[in-house]
Amino acid sequence: MEGTLPRRAVAEFVGTAALVAVIVGSGLQASGLSEDTGVRLLANSLASAIGLGLLIALFSPVSGAHLNPVVTLSAWWTGRHAPTRPGPGLTGRGVALYIAAQLAGAVAGALLAEAMFGRPPGAWSTQLRSDGHLLIGETVATAGLVLLIQGLDRIGRAALAPLAVAAYIAAAIWFTSSGSFANPAATVGRSLTDSFTGIAPASLPGFIAAQLLGGLLGACLAALLYGGRPPTASRLPQR
Amino acid sequence: MEGTLPRRAVAEFVGTAALVAVIVGSGLQASGLSEDTGVRLLANSLASAIGLGLLIALFSPVSGAHLNPVVTLSAWWTGRHAPTRPGPGLTGRGVALYIAAQLAGAVAGALLAEAMFGRPPGAWSTQLRSDGHLLIGETVATAGLVLLIQGLDRIGRAALAPLAVAAYIAAAIWFTSSGSFANPAATVGRSLTDSFTGIAPASLPGFIAAQLLGGLLGACLAALLYGGRPPTASRLPQR
Amino acid sequence: MEGTLPRRAVAEFVGTAALVAVIVGSGLQASGLSEDTGVRLLANSLASAIGLGLLIALFSPVSGAHLNPVVTLSAWWTGRHAPTRPGPGLTGRGVALYIAAQLAGAVAGALLAEAMFGRPPGAWSTQLRSDGHLLIGETVATAGLVLLIQGLDRIGRAALAPLAVAAYIAAAIWFTSSGSFANPAATVGRSLTDSFTGIAPASLPGFIAAQLLGGLLGACLAALLYGGRPPTASRLPQR
Amino acid sequence: MEGTLPRRAVAEFVGTAALVAVIVGSGLQASGLSEDTGVRLLANSLASAIGLGLLIALFSPVSGAHLNPVVTLSAWWTGRHAPTRPGPGLTGRGVALYIAAQLAGAVAGALLAEAMFGRPPGAWSTQLRSDGHLLIGETVATAGLVLLIQGLDRIGRAALAPLAVAAYIAAAIWFTSSGSFANPAATVGRSLTDSFTGIAPASLPGFIAAQLLGGLLGACLAALLYGGRPPTASRLPQR
Repeated sequence: MEGTLPRRAVAEFVGTAALVAVIVGSGLQASGLSEDTGVRLLANSLASAIGLGLLIALFSPVSGAHLNPVVTLSAWWTGRHAPTRPGPGLTGRGVALYIAAQLAGAVAGALLAEAMFGRPPGAWSTQLRSDGHLLIGETVATAGLVLLIQGLDRIGRAALAPLAVAAYIAAAIWFTSSGSFANPAATVGRSLTDSFTGIAPASLPGFIAAQLLGGLLGACLAALLYGGRPPTASRLPQR
Repeated sequence: MEGTLPRRAVAEFVGTAALVAVIVGSGLQASGLSEDTGVRLLANSLASAIGLGLLIALFSPVSGAHLNPVVTLSAWWTGRHAPTRPGPGLTGRGVALYIAAQLAGAVAGALLAEAMFGRPPGAWSTQLRSDGHLLIGETVATAGLVLLIQGLDRIGRAALAPLAVAAYIAAAIWFTSSGSFANPAATVGRSLTDSFTGIAPASLPGFIAAQLLGGLLGACLAALLYGGRPPTASRLPQR
Repeated sequence: MEGTLPRRAVAEFVGTAALVAVIVGSGLQASGLSEDTGVRLLANSLASAIGLGLLIALFSPVSGAHLNPVVTLSAWWTGRHAPTRPGPGLTGRGVALYIAAQLAGAVAGALLAEAMFGRPPGAWSTQLRSDGHLLIGETVATAGLVLLIQGLDRIGRAALAPLAVAAYIAAAIWFTSSGSFANPAATVGRSLTDSFTGIAPASLPGFIAAQLLGGLLGACLAALLYGGRPPTASRLPQR
Repeated sequence: MEGTLPRRAVAEFVGTAALVAVIVGSGLQASGLSEDTGVRLLANSLASAIGLGLLIALFSPVSGAHLNPVVTLSAWWTGRHAPTRPGPGLTGRGVALYIAAQLAGAVAGALLAEAMFGRPPGAWSTQLRSDGHLLIGETVATAGLVLLIQGLDRIGRAALAPLAVAAYIAAAIWFTSSGSFANPAATVGRSLTDSFTGIAPASLPGFIAAQLLGGLLGACLAALLYGGRPPTASRLPQR
């Protein structure tokens, strides 16, 4: 069974690359078409949310479709392989391989997006995102994401993750001040585009620290609200 | 079973705080990005609707996910624990605890949103919403919400509430003249932000009265249309 | 069973009133907020589609949720009570009662929308919609609607009607030149608002004729494509 | 059973005509209403996605609802009749008939859209789309489409195709640089409108070559990720 780990890593690589290509590419397209930053973010948020939802649906049966180091770490920490569990839990070596594949995929996705739009690849973003209130926003964004994933698991609705996580990201891009990156791998990838969705390398440490803190807060909130055990079936709404 | 009441109150507090943070935060984001008020409201309405739908899905198994005093009161009035019934019906003490948790959560959510966007918390809204036709709009908005929740329950489709209530709010923000607050707790919270989604304290009594009246009208309309008893299974569409 | 006909007529009245209030109200709201007609129609089309979908979901178990004389007539013509069949088929008297309820509801809904926005009710629309190509658009819009409803019924997916019909209307408002009224009752109601979604009384006969022709074409297309009988279960995709 | 081939071809003709009418028509409507190209593409992408999803839902039980030569060819190549298999696999003659029906439908749909908007039919598009990076975008768009369709089939979720393919197209129009035609028949049809969604005849060969290459890449990626066999049921998330 462990023999499938390479394929799972390929899925994490391809999935994270596609995710970052969708985020960066839709940001480039929207910036080129509209003068209204609100319209740009509407298009970028809807496209990013849809892309993420489809990738979770497609790759969950292969790798669990984490596509995000915070999701991998929180799954490992809680001994669960979220959002779905196609095989055995992640070992420490599996966690390292997942995160490496996610980071490599994020970089590849940013370069692919730049190439699709005819831009010379490899330019760093110059967009500083370092104000303190942005870090509060990023912490909230990631806490909400982890609460959602773990909450759906606790109430026996992990199958809703593709739709629910996609919808969450579409909303979080708007209700948080930070743009809701909520994903350290995608954040690294987004440092490699000097465009609407980019983040300057100097802002990476703050964002990634906020994301890790948010992930921890989200897991604690899930434990508080769901009490460490799944509710009985009788407490679930009928579908 | 009554021993779970504190956890249910925590869920109502966290859920209402998150709801108001989504409403106020997305309004702040949209106002900062677009000059077109229509674009602002598109983003704000979509984010608010998605946030509400996810919160109902996540917290229904814990507290019923009322997040709204009108929903709590109409559930208590009809002896139902809407939109889903995870435990025993609400007692008078439960109703009071729910509403207190919702009000406290709404205030906390507004303050969190202000903090996320780097604004000094605690400023009152200066946006008067007191014209008579706005109160008609708010009455219609709340009547529709209660009719929807009770109607879904009567036709055996309460499990659709997360999607249906979210969709309803997205539409009602547009088709009513009042912005469809439809929630006394969220209305109080929104008095604490001097921004796009705020409401001046002086306008609170009118809005809350209209919401209570609308809730009553919605419950009466549900009784008229569904006749006080659930339809038999044979009258339901097949899923 | 026929004894429930009054309640079914009440549902058609309330549902059509709500539908027209959503269409006209969201048009008034959007026109007041945005200078960009594209943004106005985005908001109006999304709100109208959501409203229609929720009304079909809520009222299907009561009356079939026609809310539209063309749907009632095509259901009667094909001997089916679309989109779902909660009771016996419609008689000629039932058809007349349904259409009367829909027309009265449409007028009431337009007046409610005007009142919600503080406008003096009873003004006729001055927006002429009489160019020949608009009538082609309206014919296409209604043909597509009837093909969709009858097609879903033929392939055993009538339960998807709330979502599918809502989505159809959102798209048809954009891809047809006429704005896709596709509903004679709503068309009459929309003659009573001098605003974004209105239609001048002089344009009513052309639009209604196009809608009736479109309904007939849609029913013929359904017969051509689905061959007059439902496909066997083995030809249906698994859900 | 082969006797149903004519009806399947009619479904492919009608479906592709409707698809192109939706794409071209919503582009004409949006261009006439908004000065902001971002708003235009928002409306056009949402309408096109919804139209495609509804057509797949309606016509899958009849013809498989390919509506796209790349889908037909990849289904034939992999010996599957995607996205659902209502009958026997396609023979070479069936493939030729499908593609002919799709091409004829695409032309008819473009002419219908032009007629609905009162434009003289038959004008060629003058919009060149020949930059190299657009062809990268078109290759990526089509690879993603085929990966999605084949991936859903491999994980036993082909019934999600109407929703998933629609959502994919809405996003791909934004994240690729080419507008994500991803369909040789629709591309040919779109050469017959001198408007927002058109493509000059001189750009057809490049786009169609990119689409064929993308389809091949998508099928290879599906084989790499899903390993040539469907996963066992135990690896699938529960619905």
